[in-house]
Amino acid sequence: MSEVRIIPVTGLPEVGEGDDVAALIAEAVQFEDGDVLVVAHKIVSKSEGRVVPLADVEPSPRAREIAGDDDPRHVETILREAVRIVRVRGSFVIAETRHGFICASAGVDASNAPEADTLVLLPTDPDVSARRIRDGLSRLTGRTVAVVVTDSFGRPWRQGTTDVAIGIAGMAPLLDLRGTRDAAGYELRSTQIAVADELAGAAELVMGKTQGVPAAVIRGFESRGEGTARELILPPERDLFR
Amino acid sequence: MSEVRIIPVTGLPEVGEGDDVAALIAEAVQFEDGDVLVVAHKIVSKSEGRVVPLADVEPSPRAREIAGDDDPRHVETILREAVRIVRVRGSFVIAETRHGFICASAGVDASNAPEADTLVLLPTDPDVSARRIRDGLSRLTGRTVAVVVTDSFGRPWRQGTTDVAIGIAGMAPLLDLRGTRDAAGYELRSTQIAVADELAGAAELVMGKTQGVPAAVIRGFESRGEGTARELILPPERDLFR
Repeated sequence: MSEVRIIPVTGLPEVGEGDDVAALIAEAVQFEDGDVLVVAHKIVSKSEGRVVPLADVEPSPRAREIAGDDDPRHVETILREAVRIVRVRGSFVIAETRHGFICASAGVDASNAPEADTLVLLPTDPDVSARRIRDGLSRLTGRTVAVVVTDSFGRPWRQGTTDVAIGIAGMAPLLDLRGTRDAAGYELRSTQIAVADELAGAAELVMGKTQGVPAAVIRGFESRGEGTARELILPPERDLFR
Repeated sequence: MSEVRIIPVTGLPEVGEGDDVAALIAEAVQFEDGDVLVVAHKIVSKSEGRVVPLADVEPSPRAREIAGDDDPRHVETILREAVRIVRVRGSFVIAETRHGFICASAGVDASNAPEADTLVLLPTDPDVSARRIRDGLSRLTGRTVAVVVTDSFGRPWRQGTTDVAIGIAGMAPLLDLRGTRDAAGYELRSTQIAVADELAGAAELVMGKTQGVPAAVIRGFESRGEGTARELILPPERDLFR
């Protein structure tokens, strides 16, 4: 094992609808083959026009009821992004998104939005977004990189959020050690490591939420295989933690 | 934001009861002030004698019942480490440990054990273990480092394990952004980032489970404050995901 570097991507302009994220990042980074580019979904969503002006939202009675003193248009946007409401407390909603992710506000967020009174949604299909960025980087730089699109998720039992992978291209999200042996020869029977989530969290360490660093390059990590972030969703019938 | 490096700690000998983990690591690493040392709990547990020979375990009727065709002494060891059983399927047990962690097998693990037919438990108080290592490193190297002791945890809703912090010294586990503003001036109302868990996961990227790399140094991350891993445990009454 050798060193892994987490390199912040700085100097990106504010991203708007129609912007080519791959081109902007290719301008900012000297890629090497094998790099993993980790991108916060915000700039991906903005480039894809996944932004909702609150003024355009007509809240339903249910949204008004949940919102209480908060903005019912914000709650309505969350409800529209949700396929299932997991929990509501006050105006705080945990929901399952169309992608199958379970997260606060169905991924709808007001921070780092392009302007006041707008909300940013998750990309429609973050795996497709990751693939598009990967293909763009390949075309523009000639380099083979993996791409991970991330969001900050809360989780049961533990305080605070960690960044996780919501879209992946060019690598397998899980490192499957089943059948391999540890240094003492003991066979690992069930170990699958969610390396894509660990890469997402590692990148967050240099991205922050307030510094305007929306991406990072992870260099020196040997990603393997192919896959999608949907593979990280645990089917309910196999989820003993649920 | 500048680059963060994840440096594997290699060349450590097999650790046994009574060994001084800080001294072994101080031999292997040239520390700099501000480094975060991430240590897999296995070597900490072994140094603290938290190893159980299966031959010493007399299984209870309950352990025999859960174990089925598996080793009832293994299940008995899990039951003894648990304060609450969260879920049982077959011989697979999810439990709450005395520390308050909810994890598979109450943290009891047969892989990377010192010899066949032994099990490794979590440290009795991983925050105390982290503190002891930090103090040792300070004494031996003159450097001020933070220490994170880790384990690999499964989680609800998502496939695979990620490494998380179970013991901390010399840094706050959460980066509290409540009240700060994003680049556009929007106030972050609830954002707390579990940076200790992100550091744990980042370190796992160079540690692996099979390569005999039980620790990593994270250099360039500005950890702040003081705290314990217990602060990462979400009280049930505040846990909307539970």
